[in-house]
Amino acid sequence: MIAEIIAAGSEMLTPFRQDTNSLFLTEGLNDLGVPVAFKTIVGDSQEHLTNAARVALSRADIVIFSGGLGPTADDNTREAAAAALGLDLRRDEKLLEGLRQRFAARKMIMPANNLKQADVLTGATLLPNLNGSASGQLLDMKWNGERRIVLLLPGPPREIKPMFTEQAKPILVRILPPSFLARKLLRMALIPESAVDARVAPIYQQFPDVETTILAGSAEIQLHFACAKPTQEEAEERVEELSEAIEHEMQDDIFSATGESLEEVVLLMLGMRHLTLAAAESCTGGLLAGRLTGIAGSSRYFLGGAIVYADRLKTVFADVPHDVIEGEGPVSESVARLLAEGIRVRTGASMGVSITGIAGPGPGTGADEGKPLGLVYIGLADADGTQVKTLKLTGDRERIRFWATQHALELIRRHLL
Amino acid sequence: MIAEIIAAGSEMLTPFRQDTNSLFLTEGLNDLGVPVAFKTIVGDSQEHLTNAARVALSRADIVIFSGGLGPTADDNTREAAAAALGLDLRRDEKLLEGLRQRFAARKMIMPANNLKQADVLTGATLLPNLNGSASGQLLDMKWNGERRIVLLLPGPPREIKPMFTEQAKPILVRILPPSFLARKLLRMALIPESAVDARVAPIYQQFPDVETTILAGSAEIQLHFACAKPTQEEAEERVEELSEAIEHEMQDDIFSATGESLEEVVLLMLGMRHLTLAAAESCTGGLLAGRLTGIAGSSRYFLGGAIVYADRLKTVFADVPHDVIEGEGPVSESVARLLAEGIRVRTGASMGVSITGIAGPGPGTGADEGKPLGLVYIGLADADGTQVKTLKLTGDRERIRFWATQHALELIRRHLL
Repeated sequence: MIAEIIAAGSEMLTPFRQDTNSLFLTEGLNDLGVPVAFKTIVGDSQEHLTNAARVALSRADIVIFSGGLGPTADDNTREAAAAALGLDLRRDEKLLEGLRQRFAARKMIMPANNLKQADVLTGATLLPNLNGSASGQLLDMKWNGERRIVLLLPGPPREIKPMFTEQAKPILVRILPPSFLARKLLRMALIPESAVDARVAPIYQQFPDVETTILAGSAEIQLHFACAKPTQEEAEERVEELSEAIEHEMQDDIFSATGESLEEVVLLMLGMRHLTLAAAESCTGGLLAGRLTGIAGSSRYFLGGAIVYADRLKTVFADVPHDVIEGEGPVSESVARLLAEGIRVRTGASMGVSITGIAGPGPGTGADEGKPLGLVYIGLADADGTQVKTLKLTGDRERIRFWATQHALELIRRHLL
Repeated sequence: MIAEIIAAGSEMLTPFRQDTNSLFLTEGLNDLGVPVAFKTIVGDSQEHLTNAARVALSRADIVIFSGGLGPTADDNTREAAAAALGLDLRRDEKLLEGLRQRFAARKMIMPANNLKQADVLTGATLLPNLNGSASGQLLDMKWNGERRIVLLLPGPPREIKPMFTEQAKPILVRILPPSFLARKLLRMALIPESAVDARVAPIYQQFPDVETTILAGSAEIQLHFACAKPTQEEAEERVEELSEAIEHEMQDDIFSATGESLEEVVLLMLGMRHLTLAAAESCTGGLLAGRLTGIAGSSRYFLGGAIVYADRLKTVFADVPHDVIEGEGPVSESVARLLAEGIRVRTGASMGVSITGIAGPGPGTGADEGKPLGLVYIGLADADGTQVKTLKLTGDRERIRFWATQHALELIRRHLL
């Protein structure tokens, strides 16, 4: 069985907006052992939507519509599905009463527009919407002699997500052939995709029944495993077997095998060792602290620090002597070292981390004259001493800044191993 | 004329990856007066891709393929397009020679796989690829008696973008009916979408020839205008007329009419007034500084500041008396005021901004016991005095933190007006 997802809405045919529901729906369908073979994005035109519905019914066993169930003239999914399926729409009195009560509870009179939200495809099972006025609909029927499962779901993420998970999925579990999926994710930082693949491909190729996906991006490599088996146990065992073999190969290069982000792992490790951290950031200007403080509970292990963007603040907040900044330039090994040590002492943290570099758009100027774009120093100080790592990063300002924070986190993680 | 974009690649049918090329292609097609009516995402199966190609040819005048032009067995776009169009593929000797030289320049022998990258659809115009080995192809032909323009483009963004803009677009301009598009974007912060719409809908409804799109998200409302006319002048005049009417209505609520982000606008205003800024962040932990330092050249107006996540650092870096923190709690009007004043004095900046609040996951604890999740104070100090704004934000940690930085930037902007 294969599925097609149809996302209806003209805004997704502009240069500004994308369908995102399909990612979540794909995950849910995969859980049930169903791959998504096609996705179609179509606007509010009833003609185009009917065409998309006919095409999907001709090539997929399961067709899921997202969007187009609202009350406006632009909401045509019910009508298009009815036309493509050759079914009638009848107005459901109970649903209508529910809609009227919904408006009454808000002390409003239901506009005539909303009447059509009570239209139901003949034979459809209704899926209640706890977060909006559009009910979902599910059909399991014959179409041109073939079995077709059709789902009409609302577009807003806060409506479609609970409706799919809580209403539709239990029905699909019942009517689809049983399938059990196990997933696992291994995460690594700062290693080139090709280097990872060269080491892990010989391993995962021995597991043809486990689907392995390598994703590279944001200074991170993710290895996703998925395996479907007749029982959940078998599926999990197989994924675990592959994962263990790869963990054995990649060892400490893997920062997480249970989903955590790199900043979460660093905070967990600080917590386990009863350590605290402070940061002095120059070129990253708060990005590193922003990543760490994005994690709930981080305040126990990350104390804060300083954004020493202006040179004078390197002295004001981390006691870096002015003549070192002047002499070696703010982007230098010495300044990185002194910043890490200074912020540690000032804040009383167990560890101090610093980032100073040239993020662009151009190469260094003033005291940093002649230093190339992408030159970054990371300092890490604790009671035992200080280390400084020199990086030559490539790309634009945004990339250099993000990679610098990733290197800083990875340096802390490896130091804490 | 309408267009369909087909994105080929199995990774876009996983829960992890999305097609993004279509946003850029849509903008380019709209520039030429062509709306996108359908987008199809399909995997590497040649059968599925051929099906998608046939469907697209049956319902769109212009069909653009992105992806599937690589050398591997998974790259089937050339073959699928040939099958759907009923055309032959011939191996192009000149293209083959170019591929061989490409490998020779890297001192490699071309693998046999790459041979098919020299396969060209009969009658196609070749589009050179300056960033990869896959050439693009363009056809302007009859298919079942109808004119069809078909483009085969590579998938990687750094290949497709220059190829579309520099190679394909000039040809499309020549072969499509002339059309001139003008665009404009007005940006506003922190106003509810419904409140904006109530004020601007009566205006833009008088301009049915200008397409107005309202986008809400990230604590910002964007009004996008697009208008196609027989001359560029007419199109721009019409967009300008609508924009001026809306600027007149919304006045200072609009922070940018020329594309800049809120942080860019704040930095520009600081620059025009020869002022400098420093920040002391508690709950946002560097996010505000991170947004400001993300802008190239920000170092002239944003000096830096402190991340005073731990209470002690509010004293260490911004001289907030310990007893005030203890007495009123770190999330209090007094602490916000003292942080803004303290960071201003410490850094020597013209203005000091502070953020302290409860970002969650839970409500306040310790000295902030009883204070609700989402309570945030923004302080703003300059030579004339200090103001503090109290916010009650909703949503999760990520949302509260981002909205707090948006409020801080908007407070600075309005103060500088």
